[in-house]
Parts: sequence; C-alpha cells; structure tokens
Amino acid sequence: MHLKRVSILGSTGSIGTQTLDVISRYPDRFRVEAMAAGGNAELLVEQANRFRPKLVSVGTKELAIHIADRVPAGTKVVYGESGLIEAAAHNDADIVVTAVVGSQGLKPTLAAIEAGKTIALANKETLVSGGHLVTEAAKRRGVKLLPVDSEHSAIFQCLNGESISAIRKIVLTASGGSFRDRTREELKHVTVQEALAHPNWSMGAKVTIDTATMVNKGLEVIEAHWLFGLPYDQIDVLIHPESIVHSFVEFEDRSVIAQMGMPDMRVPIQYALTYPDRLVSPVPSLDLAALGTLHFRKMDFERFPCIRFAFECGRAGGTMTTVFNAANEIAVARFLKGDISFLAIESVIESVLDRHVKIDLPTLEQIEEADAWAREAASAFRG
Amino acid sequence: MHLKRVSILGSTGSIGTQTLDVISRYPDRFRVEAMAAGGNAELLVEQANRFRPKLVSVGTKELAIHIADRVPAGTKVVYGESGLIEAAAHNDADIVVTAVVGSQGLKPTLAAIEAGKTIALANKETLVSGGHLVTEAAKRRGVKLLPVDSEHSAIFQCLNGESISAIRKIVLTASGGSFRDRTREELKHVTVQEALAHPNWSMGAKVTIDTATMVNKGLEVIEAHWLFGLPYDQIDVLIHPESIVHSFVEFEDRSVIAQMGMPDMRVPIQYALTYPDRLVSPVPSLDLAALGTLHFRKMDFERFPCIRFAFECGRAGGTMTTVFNAANEIAVARFLKGDISFLAIESVIESVLDRHVKIDLPTLEQIEEADAWAREAASAFRG
Repeated sequence: MHLKRVSILGSTGSIGTQTLDVISRYPDRFRVEAMAAGGNAELLVEQANRFRPKLVSVGTKELAIHIADRVPAGTKVVYGESGLIEAAAHNDADIVVTAVVGSQGLKPTLAAIEAGKTIALANKETLVSGGHLVTEAAKRRGVKLLPVDSEHSAIFQCLNGESISAIRKIVLTASGGSFRDRTREELKHVTVQEALAHPNWSMGAKVTIDTATMVNKGLEVIEAHWLFGLPYDQIDVLIHPESIVHSFVEFEDRSVIAQMGMPDMRVPIQYALTYPDRLVSPVPSLDLAALGTLHFRKMDFERFPCIRFAFECGRAGGTMTTVFNAANEIAVARFLKGDISFLAIESVIESVLDRHVKIDLPTLEQIEEADAWAREAASAFRG
Repeated sequence: MHLKRVSILGSTGSIGTQTLDVISRYPDRFRVEAMAAGGNAELLVEQANRFRPKLVSVGTKELAIHIADRVPAGTKVVYGESGLIEAAAHNDADIVVTAVVGSQGLKPTLAAIEAGKTIALANKETLVSGGHLVTEAAKRRGVKLLPVDSEHSAIFQCLNGESISAIRKIVLTASGGSFRDRTREELKHVTVQEALAHPNWSMGAKVTIDTATMVNKGLEVIEAHWLFGLPYDQIDVLIHPESIVHSFVEFEDRSVIAQMGMPDMRVPIQYALTYPDRLVSPVPSLDLAALGTLHFRKMDFERFPCIRFAFECGRAGGTMTTVFNAANEIAVARFLKGDISFLAIESVIESVLDRHVKIDLPTLEQIEEADAWAREAASAFRG
C-alpha cells in the first residue's frame, strides 16, 4: 500500500475539513504535506498542529506573521497567491485537493498540473474559467483530474470500465436548492438566512446560494463539458429533490448507470483520494426502502434562468463562462452582504454577460482580464 | 469488427425471439449458427428460413421429420436432448444463448462450456441446479458467463471496472409481480389468467408465475450467488414496483452504482451479445421526469415465503436448490393446468423441500437424481 501525500488548498472550508476527516480515518494511507487557507487562521493553526504538514499558507502577510509561532516547528508558513501556488506545486505532494472557493483556484491548479500532481478537483470555477487551458495542460502532463463534486464523481464512477464513445448523454441531478418550491414572486424578498438553509447537503455559503439560483448546476454543466469532453447537447439536468441519485449516464444502448448514496461529501472526497480503490467510509448505508420514494422532474429553464445562461455561455465558449462565473461571484457576495436582493443575482449576471465582448481561446492573461472586468461590471451594477 | 456466430437454445421463446430481434438489427455483427426449440416447430421453421442457421433442433423425432423439408437446404435438423447438446456445443458458434426453460438447460450449458463457448446465460435454473459444476467448468475452461437476466445484467454492468472485493452487498430489485398488492387471503382463488398478467415485463408463462410467487427472485438470488461468487449475506432483495432500477451494488465506501432503464429485455440481451461494447438499441430512452416517482419497499418474507425458501436452500447448499427449482417447475405446471391453486405452489415446494435428504457437492448424476425425485414428489403432492 502506497502512502499518498496530500496537499489541501482550502483546508478550513467545508470540503477541506471533510477531506481531513477522511484522511484522519486512514493514517496509514495518507499524509498531509501542505495546507492552504484564506482568513480562518485559528482553524488552520489547529489543523497544522494535528496533521503537521511541512507547509501552510494563509491569505495575507499579517495572518502569516500572526500564526508563525503557533504552528509546529517543522511547518513553514507562506501567504497570498504565491503561497497558494507553493502549497499547490512546490512540495512533495502526490495529489492536490483544490477546494478553494472561486476563480482564484485556476492558477494554483495549473501550477499543480505543471508539477505533475494528480488533481482532486473540488473547485469547479477552475474548469469554468480556464477549461481549455486546464484540460490541455493535464493531457500534456499526463495528469489525472479526479472530480470531487458529487455529481461529477457520480458520472466518473458510472464511467468506470465504460467507453466515452458509448455515452448517449450524461444527466446531472439538481436538488433545486433551498427555494425549489417557491415561485419567482415569492423569491422577491427572501433573506440571506433563508437562502443558506440547504435541505440536503452541508456546504459553504457561496455554494449554497449558487444552489438556490441554480448557478451551481450551471457551473457543473460547464465543468462536466470539460471533464468528460462532451458537447453541451449530451449534457442534461434533472430536478431530483432527495439528492440520492447523484447523477447518471445513459449509454447508446439506453442502459443507464447511476451513482447513488446518502448525500455526504465524504464519499466523493474519499473516492478521489483512494481511486481506483474503495475503502470503508463512515457514511450511513443507503436504505431505499426506508426512503420509500424518489422524485424527479424536468428542469425549469424559465424558473431558473441561470441554468439557461450557463448553457448559453458554455455553447458560446471563450471568455463567456469566465464572465458568467466572475459576475456570479460578485453578485453572491453582494447578496450575502445585504447589498442586493436574491433575484438581483440573476440581473447582475445577465447584464454583465450582455455587455461582454467575447474572446475565443483566451490566454491565462485574457481570462484574468475578463474575470477582472466582469467583477468590476458586477460591482458597479445598479438594478 | 469481428463477426460473432451465435447459437440460440430456446429460439422460439420470449428471450429467443427477442435475441433474434437484436441480431436482425446488426446483420454485420452476428450470424446465427444454430437454433434449438421445443414444440413450436412452425415458428422455428419461419426463423430457420429467415436466419438460415446450419443446424436446428426440435423437441422430438416426430417434429424433426415434420419440419425436415421445410427448412433451408443447408440446415441440418436434429432433435431431443442430444439435438440440444449438438446445438449448444457441436458447431462453430462463438457464443451460446441459453434461453431454454427449466433445469433441462444444465446439460447443454455444460457441454457448451466444455466446447469453450462464451455463454449468454438466460436460463437461471442452470446455476440454481448445478452452480458449482458450471462455475468450476467455466473457470477451468476460461469461459465467460455473461448474464442475460435483467437483474444480473444490471449487477454485471454496475461491476464494470470495479473490484469484487470492494462490494458490500448487491441488491436485486423485484417488481412484486402481478399479485404484489394482494393479501394472502385474496390470493386463494386467483386464476391462471390473472397470474399471467405481469405489469412491467413481457415474459414467458413460467417466469411470469415465478414472478408472482417470488420464486423467480429466489432463483435469481441463487444465480447471483454463483455468478458473482458472493455469500448469501451479501445478497439482498428489494421491492421496486416500477422495474426501472434493475438492480444495484453497494460498495464498501457506501457508494451505490445502479443500472436503470425502461423494462425491455432487448437491452440485457444485446449487452451480453455485444459485451464489452454498447450499440444503439431500439428501446426508448429512460425519462425519469416523465415517470416522476420511483418507489421502493422492503421485501416481505412472510407474504412471499418462496423467497425465504430460496435463501434457506441457498445457504444449505448441495442438492437443496436443485430440489427447490424442480419442485417449483412441477408446481407451476400443475397450476397452469388448473390442477392446483396458486397458493398450493408454495405448499408443494415446502413439502418437497421438507422431505429431501440433501447431498453436498453433488455430481451431475446426483443432481439429475435429486431433480427427478423432486419432480415425482411434487407431482404426487396432494394438498
């Protein structure tokens, strides 16, 4: 049994802490090599003392100074974008879990790929922003991109032993989020707190809002396009309130392979870490008889315009998906601050997309420029 | 693309005719080498003139004489058990579809295995009666046993690219058959016609009755034990009225892989014939949104005692499963003739099992003896 050395970008977030939970159950199989966090220095110090990585990175120089003498003696402290890249690439890790939030994940992921490390991809914005660069680099370097998102992990598991050319379509399921059963009229005055109460999954604030707007499913569609190399016509979405069927593949022969289970991110996280092996997990067994019923219904592209935007941006290609994602990041941040209403998230995205002049096959610089432009435009938006 | 030469045992039955339907769609991939039928000589003549096999076999000498000058000039006509074995083994077929009904499938299947032919196994009684002989022979001869039953095909598909040792359990789904929602009291006076009306699958008479008594699921449990080499504790059954989830595997990490689709036997038949490829099939695409709801409930071992008998016989091993199957074959035939009531099928099986003196690791002869004894005992049974 080969010891896997792991670097975790975003160790204090929801995916990061669950990754450490998985790792802590298999001390013989994993060793934490590096950890990067943003602002939650207290938790990072705690994690560093428990897992004793060789390197930790925090968001700012101030935080780095603040924690320097509270981490183990053998742990180097770095910070900022260069720190994140060092945690991703400049160490002995075999596998990098990219669980930072937002498009800041792109650069360190590219750096980790260039360094030949396996990627456990939990930052979907990486592929949304720079899909053609990331997949090209991974192919060139012979690096595996192992999905951590439950939907993509599901598709990835369904494709075990199967041929991509036999796929008729893949279908990503969507719980519908915290506001699934509300009309658009009822959505006008929802609060941040209401939006943060997801019925099935325990996730970070940004992803929870993205689930309610269906932006999250849109980002996943774009991510799936890059991850599995499928045209958008072969990617479909379906509302499934119980989040038990995590996604499925229909093959040419009309046989459908689905991955199911209780909604718990530790399963896809562990699978990415142990792939192709499967080890015992602490997650409860799926009891379909106890659940009794599973429901499915068509995605409503009018009720959830953001999923429509995502398909449109995906099909348009170039910098459109970068802008879709960046505008959304700002819109969500503004909603969480109480600056705009829930439905204004859609208006921000739509207005920024309308004004963007697309660049095809953008370079990393052009992606960063489009990203910055979209953030500015989304910040300036007045409904 | 390699042309596969196919022999079909039971070509005029439900699986046989659907196999020919699949084959007729891919004339470049398949050629029918041999066909065997029982009593339906008219249909066999029609099939022989359409597919022009080198060999056909019928149940009796009389039928063979009757059809001799109505099949193509190049088609040899044989009959009886030796004819069935010739159709299974003594020809140029690469793959043999074993779709005869009942335990008569055992000998030709063993002969086909010894002749090195891939087996598309549609006769579950083969493994139920002689599981240890068949699996031993297949292993020794390096022959693949490809399941055709929808449940076993489902499990087989779910295991693509996976490791048997990572299985926690497999779960076979059961529609519950034509009498799923009736109480035992209501079952006392059901007619043959009512029993033959299966809600989801189009199947032969014997299998349809076996579905209503849950004997079919019991035979499938025993078949799964041999096919996947799993102990009975790792095999579970679940009622799923819609027959959309055809079966599933739970792995150690609590990830579940399920195979789904519209209930149409042409999908698993085609998969066995084209494995590991998947080709376009004429079956409609699964539309979960249109279905809306899938239901699941616990198997009721009191309501359906035959599934309990099957697990008990499977765990006891030896000739017990042979006797379970043979007693059932006679009981079903007696029910279809109007000789006994629907619920008496269970009584026949139970009484024959109670009186059987088990032989462990039986030889083919001992299996045949136990089978003959059980048939006699089941025929003699008076409620």
